Amino acid sequence: MTTGAGEPVSDPERPEDRGFMALALAEGARASVAFGCVITRGETVLASGRNQGAETADPTAHGEMVAIRRFLAEHGAAALRGTTLYTTGEPCPMCMGAILWCGIGRVVFAASIDRLATRMNQIMISSTELAAAGFAPIAITGGVMEDEAMAQF
Amino acid sequence: MTTGAGEPVSDPERPEDRGFMALALAEGARASVAFGCVITRGETVLASGRNQGAETADPTAHGEMVAIRRFLAEHGAAALRGTTLYTTGEPCPMCMGAILWCGIGRVVFAASIDRLATRMNQIMISSTELAAAGFAPIAITGGVMEDEAMAQF
Repeated sequence: MTTGAGEPVSDPERPEDRGFMALALAEGARASVAFGCVITRGETVLASGRNQGAETADPTAHGEMVAIRRFLAEHGAAALRGTTLYTTGEPCPMCMGAILWCGIGRVVFAASIDRLATRMNQIMISSTELAAAGFAPIAITGGVMEDEAMAQF
Repeated sequence: MTTGAGEPVSDPERPEDRGFMALALAEGARASVAFGCVITRGETVLASGRNQGAETADPTAHGEMVAIRRFLAEHGAAALRGTTLYTTGEPCPMCMGAILWCGIGRVVFAASIDRLATRMNQIMISSTELAAAGFAPIAITGGVMEDEAMAQF
């Protein structure tokens, strides 16, 4: 279900989701903190990113932010609208805010913030809460390959 | 009052706040969307930023994000912890998430999200809600030179 401001957001898993999430997991496996992300349109991966907080001494260098910055540099903001973002951890409010400002159309995540919080500090506001407080429709699918993601952390 | 996760956050205005907010307003006055930000420690401004969304075609280039990126590049992440961030508009969830991940100690804003929402799209979650869902103490002071900020938008 694609929905907009003020409504709950939940989108069922699609056939292509596990393949793209496997790419995000592979990206995360290369990071010291194993968060990975790919941004797709149709069958094409247009950008990827992994957490680089330790490597670049930048606490904002989450996988999603890195992928979004690369996407903007390579393809521009207009092309980012309506894409799908796959991430191994549910986007935190920083990343989800960026996703909403950029008009990304769908988010697919593996491990939820609730599960991530059993391992590391989290800001305890879900991507669904952020989306419901936003200003444009976005679809969210959670829990795709969640156990595989948790095993990487 | 400085407070931590799960508690309301509210810090009274301090004598130096209007002077630093005037610098943030001056920074915002240079932007096509008039958001400005300065990051301080004691009496020193260590970084500044203004909204560059239009100029750089980057929807994530909010004044706070620009100032944080410049701070990290010039001074490093360790120096950012415990600083004060002045911004002409209440930080959105993206910026507030970044502020929390970076360990900034205090946020002072002019125009609230509620007032900004009368002029432009906003994600309707306050900086206080974000802070209360976070994992470390942060102080927040709102409404400093709010009318002056609104006049710039």
